[in-house]
Amino acid sequence: MDTDASGRIHYTALFRYFETAEIEFFRETGILHHHPGIAFPRVHVECDYRSAILFDDLIVLEVSVGKIGRAPVQLNFRVLKDEKEAARGNVVIASMDRQTQRAAAVPANVREKLEPYLSSIQVIE
Amino acid sequence: MDTDASGRIHYTALFRYFETAEIEFFRETGILHHHPGIAFPRVHVECDYRSAILFDDLIVLEVSVGKIGRAPVQLNFRVLKDEKEAARGNVVIASMDRQTQRAAAVPANVREKLEPYLSSIQVIE
Amino acid sequence: MDTDASGRIHYTALFRYFETAEIEFFRETGILHHHPGIAFPRVHVECDYRSAILFDDLIVLEVSVGKIGRAPVQLNFRVLKDEKEAARGNVVIASMDRQTQRAAAVPANVREKLEPYLSSIQVIE
Amino acid sequence: MDTDASGRIHYTALFRYFETAEIEFFRETGILHHHPGIAFPRVHVECDYRSAILFDDLIVLEVSVGKIGRAPVQLNFRVLKDEKEAARGNVVIASMDRQTQRAAAVPANVREKLEPYLSSIQVIE
Repeated sequence: MDTDASGRIHYTALFRYFETAEIEFFRETGILHHHPGIAFPRVHVECDYRSAILFDDLIVLEVSVGKIGRAPVQLNFRVLKDEKEAARGNVVIASMDRQTQRAAAVPANVREKLEPYLSSIQVIE
Repeated sequence: MDTDASGRIHYTALFRYFETAEIEFFRETGILHHHPGIAFPRVHVECDYRSAILFDDLIVLEVSVGKIGRAPVQLNFRVLKDEKEAARGNVVIASMDRQTQRAAAVPANVREKLEPYLSSIQVIE
Repeated sequence: MDTDASGRIHYTALFRYFETAEIEFFRETGILHHHPGIAFPRVHVECDYRSAILFDDLIVLEVSVGKIGRAPVQLNFRVLKDEKEAARGNVVIASMDRQTQRAAAVPANVREKLEPYLSSIQVIE
Repeated sequence: MDTDASGRIHYTALFRYFETAEIEFFRETGILHHHPGIAFPRVHVECDYRSAILFDDLIVLEVSVGKIGRAPVQLNFRVLKDEKEAARGNVVIASMDRQTQRAAAVPANVREKLEPYLSSIQVIE
């Protein structure tokens, strides 16, 4: 169902792969579960497509932390096919106080657990 | 994005069309909005595909009420292309008390508003 | 993205899980790839939902072969959560001659490779 | 199915709305159908989210042409809710020779039909 009539994986399917990678990453770093009082809406998402991904292509997803701001966290994603980059993208996740609906500081334990994954090379900009 | 590599609309896309039709139907009958204390989980969904639907085909969705039981409501869907049935299906929606998580009676106002749409011909069985 | 406003996995997401399971099953049995001249459109899909699946629930998907007819093959799916059945469903896949667009016999190598997976208990009917 | 457990429309659903708007736009301008020998893969997609969109919110999608390059075309999208911008984004569509798989000039009739929709204000950059 991820393919389209051109036989390629449809570009929107990659955002599903990004989210799957993000969830596994958050599970592994121990920050998957809800943080009382804080919501994490997306404020920006983007993807650049370099080469076609076809049905049954084996791909590898790389996740790293691009930036940790006061309120937002940027996650970077790379999609590798045959060890070459087929696509790259990022999502910017805000921290928001559920009650006031305004920006909140990234919770300290989230910040601490993400810092080891900060990419030294800021791949997306 | 609804097509697949065969050029057809992927079979799972039809469930999205069914849900779109259902929401418009519930909006029109005035029962779209939340009924305090009652949830409406799906307990069954099915679809039969008779002919291929292709990109840019114009289709018509027909919704009718198949059955109104004590707790469940069955909605029937037909997908017409060039006035011929390309697919048909149904969803069975339970009424559930949110607190006890057990079957509840279909709310009286829902029942009353759906009854005019009961299909005299019980198309799916 | 698979959850909905009720916090449950939306019922349509299960068809995506079914397809993922199907692809892995076909890959393992060595029949994933295209069979010249034969297409495999779905003619029927259904799912019964027994209990809610929530975000981050760990589920197991079981695939078996329900029936092998002259032209159609039925795959059965069970979704297990904590070793209990949360949902079950099936898809019926036709074999179709691409040129004539009419029913064709299930290719012999497909039949042979699926037979070991015929469920002795015909779970869906 | 577009909502998530937070009750908001999931951010990835917007790309589906963008594509729906794009198809209607291309249909209206008369360039929806396949251009022999030329494919139109996406090379970039992005979206900025400014405010939450909830179930049953009525939204309006605006499409305009951001840029027409030699090979790529950028479409800009705005999602309005209560006449305020809830999200904005763009897709960059390349023109590619199907045979050589290399960049091709935007077909003359596509260029001509898109030019009237060039936004004088280059909204996304």
